[in-house]
Amino acid sequence: MASSSSLTLSQALLTRAISINGYENSVSIPAFSGLKSTTTAPRIITNRSSYSLRHVIRASVAETIDTTTDSSLVDKSVNTIRFLAIDAVEKAKSGHPGLPMGCAPMSHILYDEIMRYNPKNPYWFNRDRFVLSAGHGCMLQYALLHLAGYDSVREEDLMSFRQWGSKTPGHPENFETPGVEVTTGPLGQGIANAVGLALAEKHLAARFNKPGNEIVDHYTYSILGDGCQMEGLSHEVCSLAGHWGLGKLIAFYDDNHISIDGDTEIAFTENVDKRFEALGWHVIWVKNGNTGYDEIRAAIREAKAVTDKPTLIKVTTTIGYGSPNKANSYSVHGAALGEKEVEATRSNLGWPYAPFQVPEDVKSHWSRHTPEGAAHEADWNAKFTAYEKMYPEEAAELKSIISGELPAGWEKALPTYTPESPGDATRNLSQQCLNALAKVVPGFLGGSADLASSNMTLLKSFGDFQKATPEERNLRFGVREHGMGAICNGIALHSPGFIPYCATFFVFTDYMRAAMRISALSEAGVIYVMTHDSIGLGEDGPTHQPVEHISSFRAMPNIMMFRPADGNETAGAYKIAVTKRNTPSVLALSRQKLPHLPGTSIENVEKGGYTISDNSTGNKPDVILIGTGSELEIAAQAAEVLRKEGKTVRVVSFVCWELFDEQSDAYKESVLPSDVSARVSIEAGSTFGWGKIVGGKGKSIGIDSFGASAPAGKLYKEFGITIEAMVEAAKSLI
Amino acid sequence: MASSSSLTLSQALLTRAISINGYENSVSIPAFSGLKSTTTAPRIITNRSSYSLRHVIRASVAETIDTTTDSSLVDKSVNTIRFLAIDAVEKAKSGHPGLPMGCAPMSHILYDEIMRYNPKNPYWFNRDRFVLSAGHGCMLQYALLHLAGYDSVREEDLMSFRQWGSKTPGHPENFETPGVEVTTGPLGQGIANAVGLALAEKHLAARFNKPGNEIVDHYTYSILGDGCQMEGLSHEVCSLAGHWGLGKLIAFYDDNHISIDGDTEIAFTENVDKRFEALGWHVIWVKNGNTGYDEIRAAIREAKAVTDKPTLIKVTTTIGYGSPNKANSYSVHGAALGEKEVEATRSNLGWPYAPFQVPEDVKSHWSRHTPEGAAHEADWNAKFTAYEKMYPEEAAELKSIISGELPAGWEKALPTYTPESPGDATRNLSQQCLNALAKVVPGFLGGSADLASSNMTLLKSFGDFQKATPEERNLRFGVREHGMGAICNGIALHSPGFIPYCATFFVFTDYMRAAMRISALSEAGVIYVMTHDSIGLGEDGPTHQPVEHISSFRAMPNIMMFRPADGNETAGAYKIAVTKRNTPSVLALSRQKLPHLPGTSIENVEKGGYTISDNSTGNKPDVILIGTGSELEIAAQAAEVLRKEGKTVRVVSFVCWELFDEQSDAYKESVLPSDVSARVSIEAGSTFGWGKIVGGKGKSIGIDSFGASAPAGKLYKEFGITIEAMVEAAKSLI
Repeated sequence: MASSSSLTLSQALLTRAISINGYENSVSIPAFSGLKSTTTAPRIITNRSSYSLRHVIRASVAETIDTTTDSSLVDKSVNTIRFLAIDAVEKAKSGHPGLPMGCAPMSHILYDEIMRYNPKNPYWFNRDRFVLSAGHGCMLQYALLHLAGYDSVREEDLMSFRQWGSKTPGHPENFETPGVEVTTGPLGQGIANAVGLALAEKHLAARFNKPGNEIVDHYTYSILGDGCQMEGLSHEVCSLAGHWGLGKLIAFYDDNHISIDGDTEIAFTENVDKRFEALGWHVIWVKNGNTGYDEIRAAIREAKAVTDKPTLIKVTTTIGYGSPNKANSYSVHGAALGEKEVEATRSNLGWPYAPFQVPEDVKSHWSRHTPEGAAHEADWNAKFTAYEKMYPEEAAELKSIISGELPAGWEKALPTYTPESPGDATRNLSQQCLNALAKVVPGFLGGSADLASSNMTLLKSFGDFQKATPEERNLRFGVREHGMGAICNGIALHSPGFIPYCATFFVFTDYMRAAMRISALSEAGVIYVMTHDSIGLGEDGPTHQPVEHISSFRAMPNIMMFRPADGNETAGAYKIAVTKRNTPSVLALSRQKLPHLPGTSIENVEKGGYTISDNSTGNKPDVILIGTGSELEIAAQAAEVLRKEGKTVRVVSFVCWELFDEQSDAYKESVLPSDVSARVSIEAGSTFGWGKIVGGKGKSIGIDSFGASAPAGKLYKEFGITIEAMVEAAKSLI
Repeated sequence: MASSSSLTLSQALLTRAISINGYENSVSIPAFSGLKSTTTAPRIITNRSSYSLRHVIRASVAETIDTTTDSSLVDKSVNTIRFLAIDAVEKAKSGHPGLPMGCAPMSHILYDEIMRYNPKNPYWFNRDRFVLSAGHGCMLQYALLHLAGYDSVREEDLMSFRQWGSKTPGHPENFETPGVEVTTGPLGQGIANAVGLALAEKHLAARFNKPGNEIVDHYTYSILGDGCQMEGLSHEVCSLAGHWGLGKLIAFYDDNHISIDGDTEIAFTENVDKRFEALGWHVIWVKNGNTGYDEIRAAIREAKAVTDKPTLIKVTTTIGYGSPNKANSYSVHGAALGEKEVEATRSNLGWPYAPFQVPEDVKSHWSRHTPEGAAHEADWNAKFTAYEKMYPEEAAELKSIISGELPAGWEKALPTYTPESPGDATRNLSQQCLNALAKVVPGFLGGSADLASSNMTLLKSFGDFQKATPEERNLRFGVREHGMGAICNGIALHSPGFIPYCATFFVFTDYMRAAMRISALSEAGVIYVMTHDSIGLGEDGPTHQPVEHISSFRAMPNIMMFRPADGNETAGAYKIAVTKRNTPSVLALSRQKLPHLPGTSIENVEKGGYTISDNSTGNKPDVILIGTGSELEIAAQAAEVLRKEGKTVRVVSFVCWELFDEQSDAYKESVLPSDVSARVSIEAGSTFGWGKIVGGKGKSIGIDSFGASAPAGKLYKEFGITIEAMVEAAKSLI
């Protein structure tokens, strides 16, 4: 990797992030030079000394929180947040005003007094992360980003809330709105992402921090509601957060007793405090979340002081606070207040301002975050320059993780095979790739949902990431597939160079599908290592045998579904999965041993579908046999039988449909000539979708029922996934 | 419903269950007449008075548990269970011996001393239910069923463990093995099913029991392991079980500190006891689960005495107990012990018997369960006869739930519509069906995952099922989609006449897909009411807009994916969903208003795909336009445009692909003539799979990317789901 100054690094990151997100021109690069400093002495960076003083206090991670701001100004600022949300929802005639009105106080304190960020570079590496797990309340976050000076949310963006092409969609989306870290809305995903973000920080801090230079040092904050609490996903990840002792994760539980169907009494009466204590969290209760600013401040102070446990701050609030007729009721959760109630709320809270108007003193109060943020980043850049001088190797690794630039030649580490190499299960071949990649890719880490020894996912050069050994890279997720996927989304979105992988049996993607869809939607390049990919797993039976899963991922947008047939195809799949950082990958891998086939290659996997053998000429074989994964071998053997009978046969590997779709028409025609309608596919899974490949006159051999419990060989025979079946189907078409 | 005596009812049930499961001839009907009794006085039913005495004590639900059985015989029986598991796994060379070896004591006590069941009629209504949530340990359950005298698990079945066509598959499957209540293996599903079973009992007991005649009165027992505890699913359902106060649910937590990846210390260090207390459970710890029989007995006694809370009995055990070299290690979890270690275990536990041999005194000890079980059922039949005389209406309702026979003419309650009926969203039309069905179908009940007012699923004639009002039928699941689906599986499998429905936004099937797959596999006819079925939901954006979901369920075996277009199709979908009790249904329903289309009908929905309008003759239209759900209207309007231009156009509704697949070739040809290749489909979802319907030359209009946040009308336009697009596509093919 080319050497660069820390300033260049920072700018490069910003530029990269902007281009990744297709968000151009509106994020300006701050003038670092004017702010750069290599000392830690207090500096006056605005004309309001109290703020600059606080800046310095925070910059040195002191635990003293300044509360000198006039509390009436805080009130005003909090009400500004409330009314920006009310007004935007009212204009859109849809949205969720209740949460922003209730959570404005805690979030005001977070964004205005606690968090370190640079609004003009939302991707500054060492920023504190904030995740609104209760994503429906997104107007809260948009209001905060707007006040804090993020260019992504200007007044016109607030006014186009929930409209086509706006930066302010109905739920927070990282790929639309710089300043939004992850994509939330489906409940529980956000707190899981926050656990992943906090894990990433803890890992990097342990790996890279040096005495006197804590180059990695930031917090992860999240707000979650009753809905997030009810989702099993949140239980999985909060259990892990407690287990891992993620001390810099601070979650605010918006305890408002209201969910869509009414009072939480109808379905949610557990003791949340006690449950979180059981999970190993530190728990604090703020009884007055509506106006108890000092209580909130004290809670955060206490949370930061507890460094070996994550903290849950239960903040009791009133949903829709300020609305005289709708507060504390489900009616304020997910609908506009209505003109009359907006007026009543304005009157009730004494708010004389026009819709979307930010009072001048509030504006002025928040304006300091732009220079302060630039100063934070400049300080950190200086720190990084010093770090780089003292620890060039570590700095290079960290830079790779921060920037996403992989070390030159990384792909050469991938193993290659010949037909003479000893045959093996693709899950074992996958393990060779994982271990090779972990040696050369600094941000490569991952693990399994308690199936490491079956999925073959242990990194042999590393130990376990645990509370006391967070510098290690084997993640132990326990039997928590959904949490695993969602945590990996958080890791992937922490820094572009993080490449998390996670593993379970392919059939159990059903447990984690919601997280996988968020990977695809939020452009988180997680690698899903899914072994035991068919009835070939044998005796465990139909509960453990995937059938429809390959089809179901082929149907999902922006996710690559790979089913490699042997060593070269497995390595090829990893090569693309590592390269394509904005698209997650699923690798379906065999439990059973497979041979290395002549004709496969790492390079050709990039085409998605390609010919591995052909005895025809003129692009006109008698028949095309198509296979994937463990059945490509069957296609190859069926071809041999047919060729011995004088037929011309092409064998095609369809390892990744999405990549084939991206190829030119000419290439597609060279693999699947439109004149050749005699096509037979074979795959030990649902035939659903294969019609597109084999065409109206082709045949698909597959399994359109559930599997059964028996040895694998017996199952293949009984379900008709055989050379004989393929030969017969081919002959019926020639 | 025809009147029948309770004896006939019982026999009818048995016969039905047998034919449902395709399991014939090996379950014999006990000679009820010889055992029938209308008194509650003690009766001698075996030649061993201590057992018959205990029978009577248990039959009257006394809490005294007989512990007079010679403890050395208990040891022997427990070791029999252990060795049946060891031997079967050894013979299969695959399986999980560790759990059966550790859980043999608690399960012996359950099946031999506590539970009431009739081994010769596994479907006797008032039996206690047992669910092995840690389903990989299925040899435990097979050994118990074998000893207890179930004809489904004979010695030869044990010897064909995990083989093709056996009654003893690799995980417990209700559709293969009478005596197994539900299908487990995917972790957490079993305890969730158990919550559903216990809910069903509590509901029926509250609805039907009368002073002096507790006609519904049974317990639900479950064994769950560390894996189940880690899954978020178990958290969701255990929170609900506590909320609902399911006092007759008793769960044993096999606390063995080992999971597949090693000691639970690596990923699972939460305080389970404290967590369950927080969830509102009664918690008991049995410290010596390996040999502490009296501790286990006392714990069960205590659990039964707590009637307002479910109980978790944490039983600390040693996985693989008895194996001198593998006990207490992950190596005994999921692999055969190996010949040498089997011998060492035989020697260690002093076991001189041959593989699969049940010692005579153990056999004799267990033999009493056949007559005792018959007596339990006969007693209950007598009780039911008395009940029927006093409460004929209630008895008829209960019978319908027990037998699955729906009241004659139930389907007439479904609403019908004409094109003149006011247009409405199919979610609202669905609510009309739900309310109509709940009035005529006694076992119809259900609810939503905190979206009742959006899914439109409230039953207006009923209140909420809550701790104090369990006779009601609106279930409030909270934001727990996965738990909701899995609980409904338990309800559906409690009794054939239970028809549970459950609801959320269609996109959130991603959270509950694992439970839905178990519905399909285990033939649980749950009705999934999935509203907001496309980008038509509008502003909530891509996190809430399903795209690939329709395809992903069309690919799943044994589940019917309906997408009704209007009122008649919605009613038609419900008619089939209610009728087909062994196949779950998914109904994708619109948020937006739709017209009632000419040509749709309740009856035609049964065909899956059918013509709603056609101006062609001779089965040769110029073009066939195909739509589903909210887009059928677009197809109909596009047809009008084309017809005005002189084209002959057929419009086809493809409301359920699975049903169309079942039709005759002649019928299919009458709808989609092979000569007509000009076909255009439209659906606001992934086009994946449509190739099969429109053929190689047809076109599919759909959405193969994620949606966006904007008003619905704008989204339809921007994504090209329009009349114009359909007309243009049609013209390009004519």
